Amino acid sequence: MIPEKRLPVTFHSATLLLAIDLIGTFVFAVEGSMAAVQSNLDILGLMVLAFATALGGGIIRDVLIGAIPPNSICNWRYPAAAFAGGAIVFFQSSFVNKVPESLITTLDAAGLALFAAAGAAKALDFNIHPFLATLMGGITGVGGGTIRDVLLARIPSVLRADVYAAAALAGAAAMILALRLRARPAVATTIGIAVCFTLRMAAVHRHWNLPKVAGH
Amino acid sequence: MIPEKRLPVTFHSATLLLAIDLIGTFVFAVEGSMAAVQSNLDILGLMVLAFATALGGGIIRDVLIGAIPPNSICNWRYPAAAFAGGAIVFFQSSFVNKVPESLITTLDAAGLALFAAAGAAKALDFNIHPFLATLMGGITGVGGGTIRDVLLARIPSVLRADVYAAAALAGAAAMILALRLRARPAVATTIGIAVCFTLRMAAVHRHWNLPKVAGH
Amino acid sequence: MIPEKRLPVTFHSATLLLAIDLIGTFVFAVEGSMAAVQSNLDILGLMVLAFATALGGGIIRDVLIGAIPPNSICNWRYPAAAFAGGAIVFFQSSFVNKVPESLITTLDAAGLALFAAAGAAKALDFNIHPFLATLMGGITGVGGGTIRDVLLARIPSVLRADVYAAAALAGAAAMILALRLRARPAVATTIGIAVCFTLRMAAVHRHWNLPKVAGH
Repeated sequence: MIPEKRLPVTFHSATLLLAIDLIGTFVFAVEGSMAAVQSNLDILGLMVLAFATALGGGIIRDVLIGAIPPNSICNWRYPAAAFAGGAIVFFQSSFVNKVPESLITTLDAAGLALFAAAGAAKALDFNIHPFLATLMGGITGVGGGTIRDVLLARIPSVLRADVYAAAALAGAAAMILALRLRARPAVATTIGIAVCFTLRMAAVHRHWNLPKVAGH
Repeated sequence: MIPEKRLPVTFHSATLLLAIDLIGTFVFAVEGSMAAVQSNLDILGLMVLAFATALGGGIIRDVLIGAIPPNSICNWRYPAAAFAGGAIVFFQSSFVNKVPESLITTLDAAGLALFAAAGAAKALDFNIHPFLATLMGGITGVGGGTIRDVLLARIPSVLRADVYAAAALAGAAAMILALRLRARPAVATTIGIAVCFTLRMAAVHRHWNLPKVAGH
Repeated sequence: MIPEKRLPVTFHSATLLLAIDLIGTFVFAVEGSMAAVQSNLDILGLMVLAFATALGGGIIRDVLIGAIPPNSICNWRYPAAAFAGGAIVFFQSSFVNKVPESLITTLDAAGLALFAAAGAAKALDFNIHPFLATLMGGITGVGGGTIRDVLLARIPSVLRADVYAAAALAGAAAMILALRLRARPAVATTIGIAVCFTLRMAAVHRHWNLPKVAGH
């Protein structure tokens, strides 16, 4: 449908993309719901945060690249995965509270990596320039968490955090580079996910931070 | 224009939809403007809040279902209704201040019910799955108020409030159910509006609240 | 492509629009980055604020008028201009700190004027009603700064500020009026930019404020 004149880099693996997206959606929904519990919200506020955290990044990406209506609105599997994540936190909160911090950090890094790779892949499929497809991967990864923080009236952690959005951008860039070097979609995706996940986990464990302007 | 292959549930009553939308727009604009007065904003800040509160939910819905440009941008009647609501609050503030709290709560419940029904109806017309059309009704009802609260740098009341978004979702679901049972659009709309309005008013008067995770 | 049946007012000067847009993008990116430095963000947070401040208003406008994907996503020059503005602030912050307050105010007024004119012009090209094209000019001018303030969890200054959004709306209205009086695009744009810039600078120097509701 879309003329592919400009770009040699494409993705084209709808099933892989869907599977990655749904797993990432579930993981992020669990995280968003836990932020809701900490902020003392009721079940509907919890579901709203689950939905926004899990699907907000993808919706922003889809609107920006012209994939309208967004997947999350066309395909009931997305909100179903998000609400399932919310329901588990709500009904099994005593269990969720026992989950160790390190497991949550690891799941979050996994969700970030999945979304960054899926976001960049989808942007390529919509004929977006690789430079901007990398940005779209970053937005897909951090957009939902940003909306969550805005709704909770706090400065988005992505603006302050140690290497987080940077890991998403690096993963998206690695995947696009691999595709350009003619790797198959599954291989390129694995590379992108691995780069983002490794960077994020290393940053957490070694307390990496990005530089700031001195004197502030 | 849009192929109607998937859904037996449709709405198709453009005039009814427009009338409902415009009344809801005016009511919500009055509310948004009153929040602006309380926050000591000038006339332009007041008009911005009137516009965002009244039209924000519908704009989000329209972008998500692919109705672009949104009605509020194509049709001057929408911003005109919003700015009329803002102007009344600005120029008749001494009168508006005398309006009893209970009337404002009632008008707000009415606006919520009108927007929830109109939002779900429009989503159906754009061939959105009934489950997601219900969500679109909820977003239409609470989206504007959420944007208003984000702009005022406070946690959206919809995330904390007693039965509010839940009433919008219930109204949208009731309308879609009625359409599926082959009720005529006007009848189904009346049912949806009545369900949402009744639930919301009952929640206010009986101090209903949704459950939270225990221990928080 | 788009049938031009309704409007006698059009713009049609793509090169002029691009040049104006890119200059405004750079100026606003510098401003957004300086807000990031004041909030002690790292380099990526700074780049996010540069991007959001510089391109947020145009992206909102493009989504609303149906110009999807937005220019900022299709055309790498926009993010490049935004990131260049961010990089200058990051690497030359000692120089940027010495820039006098009055120069920054002047540059900001210039960016506002450029964006208001460009936003209104693009909306006309997409067959939007002149009343709403004026609003689109205003949104293009103040949207990015609003997103920046929301991300920094503070009430957008545009809601509180002295004549700011009002200047953007006046500039957009003046440009559209000039086009309706059959001025050439370059002339009409110059008029719109001059009106907005002059109003804004006069408001700063004379401490103009818009009226508020009395007693608040």
